[in-house]
Amino acid sequence: MKLTKKKFSPAQYLVIGYFVVILLGSIMLMLPIATIDGQGLNIIDAVFTATSATCVTGLIVVNTKETFTLFGSTVIMMMIQIGGLGIMSMSTLFAFIIGKKISLKERLIIQEDLNQYKISGMVRLVQYLLGFTFAIEGIGASILFLRLSQDHDFLRAVYLSIFHAVSAFNNAGFDLFGNSLESFTGDITINFVIMALIILGGIGFGVMLEVYNRVKFKKATLQTKIVLVVTAALLIFGFVVFFALEYNNTMEGLPFLDKVLSAMFLSVTPRTAGFNTLPTGALRQSSLFLIIVLMFIGASPGSTGGGIKTTTFGVMLVTLKNMVSGKSDMEVYNRRFETQIIYKAFTITMLAAALVILMTTLILIIEDFQFIDVLFETVSAFGTVGLSTGITGSLSNISRVLITITMFAGRVGPLTLAVAFGDKVRKGIYHYPTEKVMVG
Amino acid sequence: MKLTKKKFSPAQYLVIGYFVVILLGSIMLMLPIATIDGQGLNIIDAVFTATSATCVTGLIVVNTKETFTLFGSTVIMMMIQIGGLGIMSMSTLFAFIIGKKISLKERLIIQEDLNQYKISGMVRLVQYLLGFTFAIEGIGASILFLRLSQDHDFLRAVYLSIFHAVSAFNNAGFDLFGNSLESFTGDITINFVIMALIILGGIGFGVMLEVYNRVKFKKATLQTKIVLVVTAALLIFGFVVFFALEYNNTMEGLPFLDKVLSAMFLSVTPRTAGFNTLPTGALRQSSLFLIIVLMFIGASPGSTGGGIKTTTFGVMLVTLKNMVSGKSDMEVYNRRFETQIIYKAFTITMLAAALVILMTTLILIIEDFQFIDVLFETVSAFGTVGLSTGITGSLSNISRVLITITMFAGRVGPLTLAVAFGDKVRKGIYHYPTEKVMVG
Ligand SMILES: [K+]
Ligand SMILES: [K+]
Repeated sequence: MKLTKKKFSPAQYLVIGYFVVILLGSIMLMLPIATIDGQGLNIIDAVFTATSATCVTGLIVVNTKETFTLFGSTVIMMMIQIGGLGIMSMSTLFAFIIGKKISLKERLIIQEDLNQYKISGMVRLVQYLLGFTFAIEGIGASILFLRLSQDHDFLRAVYLSIFHAVSAFNNAGFDLFGNSLESFTGDITINFVIMALIILGGIGFGVMLEVYNRVKFKKATLQTKIVLVVTAALLIFGFVVFFALEYNNTMEGLPFLDKVLSAMFLSVTPRTAGFNTLPTGALRQSSLFLIIVLMFIGASPGSTGGGIKTTTFGVMLVTLKNMVSGKSDMEVYNRRFETQIIYKAFTITMLAAALVILMTTLILIIEDFQFIDVLFETVSAFGTVGLSTGITGSLSNISRVLITITMFAGRVGPLTLAVAFGDKVRKGIYHYPTEKVMVG
Repeated sequence: MKLTKKKFSPAQYLVIGYFVVILLGSIMLMLPIATIDGQGLNIIDAVFTATSATCVTGLIVVNTKETFTLFGSTVIMMMIQIGGLGIMSMSTLFAFIIGKKISLKERLIIQEDLNQYKISGMVRLVQYLLGFTFAIEGIGASILFLRLSQDHDFLRAVYLSIFHAVSAFNNAGFDLFGNSLESFTGDITINFVIMALIILGGIGFGVMLEVYNRVKFKKATLQTKIVLVVTAALLIFGFVVFFALEYNNTMEGLPFLDKVLSAMFLSVTPRTAGFNTLPTGALRQSSLFLIIVLMFIGASPGSTGGGIKTTTFGVMLVTLKNMVSGKSDMEVYNRRFETQIIYKAFTITMLAAALVILMTTLILIIEDFQFIDVLFETVSAFGTVGLSTGITGSLSNISRVLITITMFAGRVGPLTLAVAFGDKVRKGIYHYPTEKVMVG
């Protein structure tokens, strides 16, 4: 893989990288051998599906099981794996394989993609990253196989196990069962393996490394502390609320333990897996609204998940807490945040909100669906979640294109995208004087 | 009016002040002479209406025209006037009237309420404020009288003119026509007078002073520049979009000029008046969603309007723009914002969003309404707008209480409320070291 000599910024390389993978994937899905009907997908659905897979979103306009051949679904699985690891860490892998040295520029690209700060140790990080990924996916697939081999013949069970382990760990949410995991609502093995894969995939490699190296909480990096606390808080909050809200709704008639299991899964999946064991369209509006909020927050940075990220949310919460307490330093765990990090957190959130508002409005103008279904859909696309109340397949072509754009923007990150096409970084030598402004 | 010797913070005085006015107003609305049926309002509706009037929101659970006597509607008008000017500037007026000197503490309270920075000149500001208010309301009422005297006898026309001038300038949105301004959709006089009153009332006294003193735009304060630019942008944006979206919907069958007028009014009213000339419940979902966004942003600080405020929105936009351009100073018009102002802007927005999300979720759990109607209602309450798709009167008592709390919190400001009950201001002598965190 050769990098061109043109002066692209790391952010621009990232955007182009994703773009190329989606393009190649789309072409492959349009081939006659990709679909069971031997027609191949039309271009809009091919780009939609390729974007959904590469951006590990999981929204589908065609049923994956009923539409694709083994070739087609394998193409999807590969796009998921490439997208999940980040094109740039994959390119590092290629660089390893063909024995090239990794340039600083390439390292910077990886850095942008995984959003890590330290350039040194980046190579080792990617090695770890690949090791972790394949190890965890392997273990997950093995346990899934024990369960799925009960219902399928050997080869099919192997394939299904690998596909769903990859899809879960990369928080892609694609399934080959035809109805996500709704046939496994009370299945303890499937539920726990998939939840474990989702959480591990969504927590970020930096955190996994620290946990793996048995760093104690007190000595962990601030990053890891925030990720763990926010993730745990969101999981517990979601579990309690969803259990209460859906007890007499979608969970009606289920045994008590299955209700507990369903609530756990419903709390895990917005971070940002997209599998579902309960019928999403039948959830209460209050549940849907909270899922929208959770999907918007999403997973942790340097992970396979999307959303504005748990750390972004954490930084904003810390700022809120300190402002309310009247402190001028934004402190947490005996550390303080730099101003620029706080600005960045809020900027990301604003851009994300702007994208969601714009896309929701446009689709509301075009389509005749209820507001909550459209908002759910756009946030799901932005957060690369893939949950849907069921409208995806009924969207018109224009809306499919809009959702495709949203998935892409959600994956490469609103800020990365904006910076990629914004002005160059300018460090001011002269500072303008300040002037007060009333806010609120 | 005596201030107690207890050590309340200015923010706490403000909260208590509003609370006392609402309490007194509620009691008066419960009197038999307040309602036409001679029963007085029940306690929940009385508190709801008093809060809606004092917080100049305009949401109603009972039809103002059909429910209240002259006494009742006059109580409402007085609460609107008191709430609009801010209890604290009214207390300054009282202090003037009874010849007392104004203490620094009282000035600080006013400062908190009108959110002005400079304590010096505060007394003169309040004088101006009262002068402006009564002058503008007087002119507005006079023009309204010319039009309303065509349909009503002299005394009724006088009363209606004053009531609606007060209601419009204070961005209250209460009406005595029974159907807001839906009978005046194409009425040029009514539309332009009400729009002018709304805009003047919502732009803030500081800006009005500068405009009145013919300060040129280039020499104006940063505050005034941001208010004018953001307000103008929101008005034009709203006009264009609403004209396009509602042309074949609620405006169907209207003459072209009436369509233009309706779109103008629809663009003005979310800032945060709450009158409507088109039936709100019949608007497109896309229009409703954009009105939600506009209501959330609201009016300008130091005005009778609500929302997070145009300057808060402006500060966030400037931050966004500078971050995307890669600048470290947040600059606009050759000035830069202090870090704390940016933090405050984002904190206010976060608190507002949290309040809206919480209340929307709770009401969704309790009631059976569509999501967009509930979200519209809570944002309208938070922004003290008073527009509704029509569900207010059908809300259960618990939801009425929740909306009452939202109106109150929206008026005194999420941040003021939070600071009022938060820890005391602590300026750190020691700074913790910084540590980087990945966001986004
Ligand atoms: K997903
Ligand atoms: K209002």
